[in-house]
Amino acid sequence: MALLSMRKARGCWSFIRAFHKEPEPAPAPQSCRSFDLLLRAWIKYNSGPKKDSMERIFSGIQPTGILHLGNYLGAIESWVRLQDEYDTVLYSIVDLHSITIPQDPTILRQSILDMTAALLACGINPEKSILFQQSQVSEHTQLNWILTCMVRLPRLQHLHQWKAKTAKQKHDGTVGLLTYPVLQAADVLSYKSTHVPVGEDQIQHMELVQDLAQGFNKKYGEFFPVPKSILTSMKKVKSLRDPSSKMSKSDPDKLATIRITDSPEEIVQKFRKAVTDFTSEVTYEPASREGVSNMVSIHAAVTGLTTEEVVRRSTGIDTARYKLVVADAVIEKFAPIKNEIEKLKMDKAYLEKVLQAGSAKAKELAYPVLQEVKKLVGIL
Amino acid sequence: MALLSMRKARGCWSFIRAFHKEPEPAPAPQSCRSFDLLLRAWIKYNSGPKKDSMERIFSGIQPTGILHLGNYLGAIESWVRLQDEYDTVLYSIVDLHSITIPQDPTILRQSILDMTAALLACGINPEKSILFQQSQVSEHTQLNWILTCMVRLPRLQHLHQWKAKTAKQKHDGTVGLLTYPVLQAADVLSYKSTHVPVGEDQIQHMELVQDLAQGFNKKYGEFFPVPKSILTSMKKVKSLRDPSSKMSKSDPDKLATIRITDSPEEIVQKFRKAVTDFTSEVTYEPASREGVSNMVSIHAAVTGLTTEEVVRRSTGIDTARYKLVVADAVIEKFAPIKNEIEKLKMDKAYLEKVLQAGSAKAKELAYPVLQEVKKLVGIL
Repeated sequence: MALLSMRKARGCWSFIRAFHKEPEPAPAPQSCRSFDLLLRAWIKYNSGPKKDSMERIFSGIQPTGILHLGNYLGAIESWVRLQDEYDTVLYSIVDLHSITIPQDPTILRQSILDMTAALLACGINPEKSILFQQSQVSEHTQLNWILTCMVRLPRLQHLHQWKAKTAKQKHDGTVGLLTYPVLQAADVLSYKSTHVPVGEDQIQHMELVQDLAQGFNKKYGEFFPVPKSILTSMKKVKSLRDPSSKMSKSDPDKLATIRITDSPEEIVQKFRKAVTDFTSEVTYEPASREGVSNMVSIHAAVTGLTTEEVVRRSTGIDTARYKLVVADAVIEKFAPIKNEIEKLKMDKAYLEKVLQAGSAKAKELAYPVLQEVKKLVGIL
Repeated sequence: MALLSMRKARGCWSFIRAFHKEPEPAPAPQSCRSFDLLLRAWIKYNSGPKKDSMERIFSGIQPTGILHLGNYLGAIESWVRLQDEYDTVLYSIVDLHSITIPQDPTILRQSILDMTAALLACGINPEKSILFQQSQVSEHTQLNWILTCMVRLPRLQHLHQWKAKTAKQKHDGTVGLLTYPVLQAADVLSYKSTHVPVGEDQIQHMELVQDLAQGFNKKYGEFFPVPKSILTSMKKVKSLRDPSSKMSKSDPDKLATIRITDSPEEIVQKFRKAVTDFTSEVTYEPASREGVSNMVSIHAAVTGLTTEEVVRRSTGIDTARYKLVVADAVIEKFAPIKNEIEKLKMDKAYLEKVLQAGSAKAKELAYPVLQEVKKLVGIL
């Protein structure tokens, strides 16, 4: 057992539970002998196709809006990490989601390439993961229609995001905005994905994905794995202007959000104007000192240090100077990414090639799944 | 002018109106000379590609349920006629619409082939028209999503059919049932169709198709022709058991509806039990004598005679005997169709080949349209 990595050990333990057909918590193995038997069975089970080859990660990001510090630290860093942990990893630029609100076609077209450049620059490696454009894989909308025929209107009307978004738009959202969580389900299920890295605001939509998978399986027989959310240990980055709310690309206050492509001058200016409090000492007290604690969090995240270490190193620095220290750390972290984005954006043909190759690979996976779905539904 | 057919004359008149850029009603041409000029310009305009080659017919039929006398005389007869009147004619077996309500997969799969057999037997000629299965052409659901992002929820909730259908289902319809008129719009617009033969109950949905075409053109520039309804001179066939309502496949009273595949015995029995009144004479008075007038209508439609001629020939026959005369005429009309359906149903491979070839042709037309749409929207 000592030779097994922690990850394999966890896999082994799941297998033991499955072998016993016991719900969690599983009983500890009763004797060394039975444990040995189980271990041997597990090794045999794993000598076939690698277990991970059944596990598929899917996640998507809308092309509109530049990546910012919040979604870089919140999502993209974990996307990069997951590439090395799973065999099949799909990351989709979900352009069909972005048109649920009005878009300028010229800007949208550019944004798709810009987002591709940004993801590549952040470390998404097209050799390790399938990076593709959603609208280039027609299986998404085809499965979307089938799932749309399995969901009732009130279910969608009760989703928080629809309620919040239509409240803002005086209840005038498009039907696309109402039904896009069903398209999300199709995105995930088109690949029989098993794991979906999501933010907390997407948990309700993931429940819909899970319900649709289960509903389909109940009606047509076991087919879709019920995908699990991976709640990545999100480093929650707050707005620099209102540290009680999260950093967002759509914040009307331009000083609130650090974009990956901001110039060093812009980053310094935004940190300089960041809201803190009247205590000059640098401490990490998220409950009582939101502003300065947000700085400490950002500082820790971009340097890879713990918040304690960051605070220790900042002894004797007042918050005004500390803001510049954090700004420098952010500039240092993003400088190579920013350079790479600019280099990639010059090579439109390469970006298009990456997306086309990714979309072809994605289609290869989605096509047989949809064919099976069509057979089960009775239209093939 | 005398040499022009009525159809060409109408085309000419539209051209004159367009030339004048006058709204309807157009003024009559002021002088012979100006009319001659216009006529020459029109002939020159028409000497390029044949005007009809720009005109595309699209219509769809759900695969579920056997064709009956009502939709044969109401829709299919006109479909057959339109094949000779237009260059490009598309008829789709709209399986994706049928799954808006629950279906048994095995029955649905069979129904798609049965409907193909029935349409071929009725005279739909795959050499003249493109007969295809909707779900085999992914452009439908792709365009559907784009259009779904252009329509507001209340617009769909106010459609009569949704209100009627959800009222029946205790307001528990699926989102597919709510949004299927948008898929209908995608069906039509995927081919830049110009004309859609529809029944009166579809006029409201056609208005949505027209609004979506116009809305798209307004946002992205002139692209879609605004399709026109062809309200075929529907011979409205009424229920044999309640001649105040129309003949329908879903009538719970099995005696109300004559199916194309009914045996002669079944047809005789259904006509024998048909509701008429206490007057024995055969007359055509739809307002006061619905039952017998329905017989006369059916009799006229299946024999190709006028209602007057049918009544004249039935002088001296009482309604009881007349029912059998009409039954015989219906049996005679449907006998060759019924035989052909049975023959075709034996050749599953042929039916599948017809649908595949039709779907490939349909895809050839829909693909470039969708590519253009994607470019306009900014996702290509």
